[in-house]
Amino acid sequence: MSERKIRAPFFVVNPKSFLYGEELYALASHADKLAKEYDLDILFTGPLTELAILAARFPNLIITSQHMDSVGLGDSMGRILPESLKEIGVEVVVINHADRALTFSQVIATVKRAKELGLKTLVCADSILEAKAIAELEPDILLAEPTELIGQAQMTSDEYVLETTRLIKEVNPNILVEQGAGIRTEDDVRKLLELGADGVGLTSGIVKADNPQEMMEKMVMEIVKFK
Amino acid sequence: MSERKIRAPFFVVNPKSFLYGEELYALASHADKLAKEYDLDILFTGPLTELAILAARFPNLIITSQHMDSVGLGDSMGRILPESLKEIGVEVVVINHADRALTFSQVIATVKRAKELGLKTLVCADSILEAKAIAELEPDILLAEPTELIGQAQMTSDEYVLETTRLIKEVNPNILVEQGAGIRTEDDVRKLLELGADGVGLTSGIVKADNPQEMMEKMVMEIVKFK
Amino acid sequence: MSERKIRAPFFVVNPKSFLYGEELYALASHADKLAKEYDLDILFTGPLTELAILAARFPNLIITSQHMDSVGLGDSMGRILPESLKEIGVEVVVINHADRALTFSQVIATVKRAKELGLKTLVCADSILEAKAIAELEPDILLAEPTELIGQAQMTSDEYVLETTRLIKEVNPNILVEQGAGIRTEDDVRKLLELGADGVGLTSGIVKADNPQEMMEKMVMEIVKFK
Amino acid sequence: MSERKIRAPFFVVNPKSFLYGEELYALASHADKLAKEYDLDILFTGPLTELAILAARFPNLIITSQHMDSVGLGDSMGRILPESLKEIGVEVVVINHADRALTFSQVIATVKRAKELGLKTLVCADSILEAKAIAELEPDILLAEPTELIGQAQMTSDEYVLETTRLIKEVNPNILVEQGAGIRTEDDVRKLLELGADGVGLTSGIVKADNPQEMMEKMVMEIVKFK
Repeated sequence: MSERKIRAPFFVVNPKSFLYGEELYALASHADKLAKEYDLDILFTGPLTELAILAARFPNLIITSQHMDSVGLGDSMGRILPESLKEIGVEVVVINHADRALTFSQVIATVKRAKELGLKTLVCADSILEAKAIAELEPDILLAEPTELIGQAQMTSDEYVLETTRLIKEVNPNILVEQGAGIRTEDDVRKLLELGADGVGLTSGIVKADNPQEMMEKMVMEIVKFK
Repeated sequence: MSERKIRAPFFVVNPKSFLYGEELYALASHADKLAKEYDLDILFTGPLTELAILAARFPNLIITSQHMDSVGLGDSMGRILPESLKEIGVEVVVINHADRALTFSQVIATVKRAKELGLKTLVCADSILEAKAIAELEPDILLAEPTELIGQAQMTSDEYVLETTRLIKEVNPNILVEQGAGIRTEDDVRKLLELGADGVGLTSGIVKADNPQEMMEKMVMEIVKFK
Repeated sequence: MSERKIRAPFFVVNPKSFLYGEELYALASHADKLAKEYDLDILFTGPLTELAILAARFPNLIITSQHMDSVGLGDSMGRILPESLKEIGVEVVVINHADRALTFSQVIATVKRAKELGLKTLVCADSILEAKAIAELEPDILLAEPTELIGQAQMTSDEYVLETTRLIKEVNPNILVEQGAGIRTEDDVRKLLELGADGVGLTSGIVKADNPQEMMEKMVMEIVKFK
Repeated sequence: MSERKIRAPFFVVNPKSFLYGEELYALASHADKLAKEYDLDILFTGPLTELAILAARFPNLIITSQHMDSVGLGDSMGRILPESLKEIGVEVVVINHADRALTFSQVIATVKRAKELGLKTLVCADSILEAKAIAELEPDILLAEPTELIGQAQMTSDEYVLETTRLIKEVNPNILVEQGAGIRTEDDVRKLLELGADGVGLTSGIVKADNPQEMMEKMVMEIVKFK
C-alpha cells in the first residue's frame, strides 16, 4: 500500500459499534463511491473484526481502526495487533478515544508503534491541555473533543474550535485538526470547516439519521465545496 | 452456519499474537487439510482482525476468537462486538483468558451474550475453585489451566488434570474439558488424552517448534488415535 | 488483638465515602455505645485513610476496611497494604465489592492474604452463581447482593434472600450470610433477619436518613430482638 | 493547617509499601527531628492507612499521600477520598505515579480536585513530553522520572536532568522539579542538586540501606548544604 498523505478537507465516518455486516457494507459502499467520484479522503471505521472485509471491498476508502494495542508479536491474547492491522489494509488507527482512554505513556508508545509500521495516527484529546500535549507527538490527525471543558469560563463551541485549531497548529502546522462534537446536519459540517477544521467526523449524525446514506452524502457535498 | 456440536477429542491451535498474515494462513491451511482428512474438530485462533479471513478461507476449521466484549450494538468504540464475530463466521469465543481476565460478573454476562447469539464458549479458569464455579455457567468447553495452584500441597500435573476433569464432569458431564499447560511434544498430547482430557490446546509447542506444521501434524495424529 | 469470632445477628454500618471527619466520628461514637450496651457485633467502615482513627477511638466497633490489595511488603505505591490494615486495628476487610470488582483469581489471592494475617473476610457476590463459587473460599461473611439477577424468571426479593442463604449454607454452614439491598427502615431490617439473614448492612438507609444516628439506633434495636 | 509553600531544596522520603508500623514510625521520627533541626522541608509518605498516624505524630514532616482518587463525597467504595486526606493532615498528594498511572483527563481532574481542597500536588511524568504537558497543569512539584527514554539517542542521566529541569521551568518557573531515579548515596543527592534539581526523592536508597536512618541523615546533610 502506498502511504498516501491524508488531504484536507477530509471526512471521517465512524459507525462505532452501531453497524455490522450488510448494513455496514451498504454504507461503506456508498461512501466508497462518493470518495471516488469527488476524489475525497474519507476515513471509514467499523467493528475491528470486519476491517479486513472493508479494506478488501472498498479500495477508495481509508480504512481506519477504532483501536490498536501497543503490543508486538508474541504471547498476548485477544489484543489488536499492529502488524495485523497493517497486513489487512488498515491505513489509520484511532488512539486514545475517550471510550478506550490511555495513560500518556501508553499514548506515546502506541503512536511510536504505529509510525514504525507506517500506520497513520488519529489521536484523540478531550481537553485543550491534552490537545497541546498530544500535538507534540506529531500525530497525522488530532481530534480535539471537549469531554470536559477546562478552565474557569465555559467557552462557546466556536471559540473552542478556533482555540484548539490555533493551539495545535502553533505546535505543528502539519497536524490535521479534526472536529466533531455534536454534528447533526450538513450545516454543522460546513460551519466547522468555515471555522478552520481540516476535517470533520461523526457517528450519531449519520447512523441515527432517517436515511444514513442520504445524510452522509449531503455532508460529503459540503466538504467537497471546501476543496 | 449450522451449530455443529464440538466433538471430543478435539484440538485447539492458538497462535495468540505470534503469527499473522501468510505465516498464519499457511499454518491454518495445513490444519484445515488435517481437519478434513481425519474428520477432526480443530479450533483455530489468530489475531482478532484476521478472523474474517480465516473463516472465509478455511471452512474445515472451527474459527475461534481470543476475546469478546459483552457489549451490544451501540456507541462502544474499539470493542470486540459479539454480533460481528457471528457475522464473519466465528463459531467459538475464548472468555476469561488469564491475559484478559474478567470479574465473575463479566464472565457471566459474556457467556450469556455468546449463548444468545449461538456462539460457543471456551471459558478459562486458573484454579480448581474457579473451574468448579465456571462449570456452573455451562460453557461448551472449560480450559482449566493452573496459573497458581491453590491449597497447601502442590499437586502433580497428573493429579491436577484428573482432579479438574472429575470435578467439572461432576457439575455437568456435558462440558468438554480442555487441558493445555506445558505441551511440547506429541507425547504430551497423548498423555493428557489418556488422563481424560476431552481436548488439548497449545501455543508455544507449535509456534516455537522448528517446523510448526510438522509438529502440529504429529500432535493431530495422536488425537486421531483417540477417536 | 484477639481474633474474636463475629456473632450473628450482626450489623454493618458502611458510610462508603459519604462521611468523613467529625460527622463520621459522631456516627461511629453512637454505634460504639450501642455495640457496648447491647453486646452486639457492629462492623463499621469509613474512608480508608481514617480507619486508624476509628480503630483507636472506638474499641467496641469491629473496624472494617472497604478494600484491600493483595500486595505484600515491597515497592507497590498507593495500595492498601494488608499488613498495615492489621497494624492499625482493622479486623475485617471487604473484598470484591461491585465498585472494586476483582477477577476470581484476585478474589482467591486476596482472601488468602487476609487469612494469613488473621484478618476476617467479608466477600461480596453479585449473583447466586458467584455467591456459590465464593462460598467455596470460606469467607467469614458473604454478602450476596444481586447487581443483576440471573436466569429467566425474575425472583422476588424474599425468594432471593431465602435462596442465597440456603445455597451458601449448603456449601458451608459456618459462613455468615449478610443481606442488604434496599434497606430503608427498621422494618426492612427485621424482615431480612426473619428471612434468615445472619446480619444486615447498609449505607443510604442511614446516611441519607433525616437523623442518621436515630435511624441507626432503631435498626440496632430490631437486631437486638433477634439475639 | 497553614498552607505553607514548599521550599527548595526539599527532600522526599517515600518508603512505598516497604515499611509500616513501628519500623515506619522510627524512620519518620528521625526525619521529623532532622526537619526541625535544619528547618528543612521533608515530604514523607507511607501506607495510605497510616497517614493519619504519621500526621498526628510528626508535625515537622510534610505528610504526603501516595495516591488520591478524584472522587467526591458519595457512594464510592474503597477509594482514597480527597476530603479525608485533608482532614487527617495530609499536605501533598502524589498523582500519576507509574504504579498508579492515570489517563491525561484523570490527571487533570485529580489536580483540580487537589487544588480545590488546598492539597499540594506532586505529579509524576515518565518522559520529557509528558513532563512538558504536565507542567501546563501547574503542579507544585513535578517528578520527571524516565520510565522509558524517548527519541532515538539514549540521553545520559545528566543531560536528562538538565533537559527536564530546563523545559519545565520554561513552561512555569514556579514549579519545583524533583529528581530521583537511582539515588543510592549522599553523593547522588549532591550531584542532582548541583544539576539544578529543586528536590530529590527516593525509596530503595534508604529502605534497603544497611542503616536506613543513618543513610537518610547523610542525604539530608547534603541537602542542607544547598540551602
